[in-house]
Amino acid sequence: MLTPDFKKGGGLIPAIAQDAASGEVLMLAYMNQQAWDKTLQTGEVHYYSRSRNSLWHKGGTSGHVQKVKAIRLDCDRDAVVVLIEQIGGAACHEGHRSCFFRERGPDGEAVECSPKVFDPEKVYGPGA
Amino acid sequence: MLTPDFKKGGGLIPAIAQDAASGEVLMLAYMNQQAWDKTLQTGEVHYYSRSRNSLWHKGGTSGHVQKVKAIRLDCDRDAVVVLIEQIGGAACHEGHRSCFFRERGPDGEAVECSPKVFDPEKVYGPGA
Repeated sequence: MLTPDFKKGGGLIPAIAQDAASGEVLMLAYMNQQAWDKTLQTGEVHYYSRSRNSLWHKGGTSGHVQKVKAIRLDCDRDAVVVLIEQIGGAACHEGHRSCFFRERGPDGEAVECSPKVFDPEKVYGPGA
Repeated sequence: MLTPDFKKGGGLIPAIAQDAASGEVLMLAYMNQQAWDKTLQTGEVHYYSRSRNSLWHKGGTSGHVQKVKAIRLDCDRDAVVVLIEQIGGAACHEGHRSCFFRERGPDGEAVECSPKVFDPEKVYGPGA
């Protein structure tokens, strides 16, 4: 059985969500054992929220869930790539398709590199 | 200037190396401020090795360096994607093109999903 090694990272491993169709890296978050188990059981990606210290079903409220297509572990089994279909088209809470929507330009300035798909205020409410 | 926030992760951020041409995720390692600075200065990816507690110029010994094509930060600026050209064709010390060379099969078994490019014993020596 191919399973992660949670020991090295104090119970957490970084999890990369990659669009299964385009190959775009959409976000990086963390999983603990429970998030890993729930992801396998449900076929939808669950993370562990370090800020809220709790299990986080990505898109559980908005419906913008991440459907699991494949799961890969690295050579040390302490990092995971989850190939997904992003329901709603955007992984980022700021409304961009990818959380990695800023690229360094020639002078180190931020250049947008991933389109804005939704308005966060319309999905999460004003002031979100 | 687009720069990472190293505070949240105790001085480290996860860095995803992605093949700039194919989009394949090749590895995940960590950067500290020094690794970030050296990466920008040299155009070759530097990481911070958590096991050796030192700056790590990827491929510095073998010549299999990672040439930087673009650098992206996520919404929280605490994770980085580096789009690279992998000299030598393999990022993994086990000789596979990607460190994420094992995928979970239908019964949770490991299935190889990234080709072996070199023999580690020939590059690093016997017992490496």
